[in-house]
Amino acid sequence: MSQCTQRACMPKILDGKALANEVRKRVKENIKSTQAKVPDYKPRLAVVQVGTREDSSVYLRMKQRAAKETGIGFTLEQLPESISEQELLNRVRELNEDSKVHGMIVQMPLPPHINETTVIEAIDYHKDVDGFHALNVGKMAKRSTTPLFLPCTPKGIIELLKANKISLSGKNAVVVGRSDIVGFPVAALLSAEDATVTICHSKTENIKSVINKADVLVVAIGQPEFIKGEWIKPGAVVIDVGINSVTDTSKASGKRLVGDVEYETASKVAGAITPVPGGVGPMTVAMLMENTMISANRALEHRNECQTVCEERLQPLFSFNLFSKKFLISTSKEVHKK
Amino acid sequence: MSQCTQRACMPKILDGKALANEVRKRVKENIKSTQAKVPDYKPRLAVVQVGTREDSSVYLRMKQRAAKETGIGFTLEQLPESISEQELLNRVRELNEDSKVHGMIVQMPLPPHINETTVIEAIDYHKDVDGFHALNVGKMAKRSTTPLFLPCTPKGIIELLKANKISLSGKNAVVVGRSDIVGFPVAALLSAEDATVTICHSKTENIKSVINKADVLVVAIGQPEFIKGEWIKPGAVVIDVGINSVTDTSKASGKRLVGDVEYETASKVAGAITPVPGGVGPMTVAMLMENTMISANRALEHRNECQTVCEERLQPLFSFNLFSKKFLISTSKEVHKK
Repeated sequence: MSQCTQRACMPKILDGKALANEVRKRVKENIKSTQAKVPDYKPRLAVVQVGTREDSSVYLRMKQRAAKETGIGFTLEQLPESISEQELLNRVRELNEDSKVHGMIVQMPLPPHINETTVIEAIDYHKDVDGFHALNVGKMAKRSTTPLFLPCTPKGIIELLKANKISLSGKNAVVVGRSDIVGFPVAALLSAEDATVTICHSKTENIKSVINKADVLVVAIGQPEFIKGEWIKPGAVVIDVGINSVTDTSKASGKRLVGDVEYETASKVAGAITPVPGGVGPMTVAMLMENTMISANRALEHRNECQTVCEERLQPLFSFNLFSKKFLISTSKEVHKK
Repeated sequence: MSQCTQRACMPKILDGKALANEVRKRVKENIKSTQAKVPDYKPRLAVVQVGTREDSSVYLRMKQRAAKETGIGFTLEQLPESISEQELLNRVRELNEDSKVHGMIVQMPLPPHINETTVIEAIDYHKDVDGFHALNVGKMAKRSTTPLFLPCTPKGIIELLKANKISLSGKNAVVVGRSDIVGFPVAALLSAEDATVTICHSKTENIKSVINKADVLVVAIGQPEFIKGEWIKPGAVVIDVGINSVTDTSKASGKRLVGDVEYETASKVAGAITPVPGGVGPMTVAMLMENTMISANRALEHRNECQTVCEERLQPLFSFNLFSKKFLISTSKEVHKK
């Protein structure tokens, strides 16, 4: 963490865009290297979009681009806004069963007639690369267990902090927002990194004084420029998860993106800060690619384990190897599911 | 919360023993009332003990007494210390399948050759009345989902606070200890009650100043009398989860039980405080009984739902009711599992 305590100092910019680029390169190289040994290895991400919300489409295009860049197969399922919950669940279950798909996400938000929780919990937790399934959340929250996937934004935040050599042990970390997607899981991960974590929210009294104690501040509330620079402890590390579109008549588009933190004032106080855009956002997408690769690697490991076991069991019966790689691909669902 | 800010004031004693007594009475009456309508309704708790640790046996006897008092069937399975993990898992799975059992706990700690996590995760989460299964933990942690069972100690703490009309919304709650069993889940529940929650642990720097900000302090670290009265904010609510046996030559037994908080000094500062013993401990046992009853009620509801569906489907075929209660008992496992 920067030791700067003067308002006039320039903060370190936590460049999520550059780090995400590195992560994607690493994922791409790992995939290539595995493919050199296992030609049929092909990580694949299936994304389900219900309706045509423009904000969802923007995010999906980012994911699609990142998948292409890293060599991950990308299946986009665009379903009509009018689809029933049951029809959507059926499609999710088909993708659960599809052994060629290693990661699945259903783009949120869903139309009001569909229960988002029901859909998230219907995704096989072995393919839950968003890390939103209750079983993965529970295994993340418990210190004695390890989830199959960490949720992408919190994982990206921790990776961004570590890459910038920001120590967390014993530090006061304040998380503003207690959402299932960011606030709560990032609090759990910061605690696992030995930070002393405080979770704030809309009911927190005297939030300014709580924020002012934070060595590390993570804000994820979706309220444009809510946190002001004067609230922040000089030298603090500020992670701004918000991406809000606000009116700006000086722009050709008539709008611009801002975070949940007032960057102009915060950057004069913070020791390090994420820009918006270009901070946490790109890390989220990069982590999704990494999680998909992890899932494909896990499926491959299980396939190999099964091959070994089956060969051993069959050796007394057959003198030839029944389990060619081709055969095993078609059964990789079972292997993947252990 | 008491408004007392003078060290000389007497704190309110948060009498867990008395409240647990009320809870057990309520559970007993509810069970009786359901049995009046459904004679074969009989909630049952199965407890598995591996080895003969004396401390475990003490806790088990408390649970057994509470079960007897509330009218809950109690099956104690005492297995030898030498049992293999696989044999224990097999027994857990048999109890999962036993439709007469509604709640199951495996008494911790287990011998070192058995992986505790593997055993906990093997318990059917429909019968996980301890609330330790990752799926229940995840559903508790997520604001958008509801677990089948809340873990007993955290649930008992919230109930004790509510029964004493201690408001939590907007209050600073500090949890010392981040265990899977108490620290983490109680932090999640306090946040769900709109408290601003800080989680401290062994790596927290300047813990005294963090504790001094707490309106509500929950301590669960298993360190006798670690927290001193002078650290506590005057008027704070103090929940002491620790139960530690220390040497006391003035006692006939040569020892006495103390909490993680130094009661003598803390009770001079706190606005309200739990005694040890007689605070959180009895609440934990009472919540276990309540969870077992909840599980039995859920099984009964599912059985009734199934009966209705089955009757409707069969009506065109049969003019008599095939699904007598007796028949349904023998299939209640499937019903229970939805």
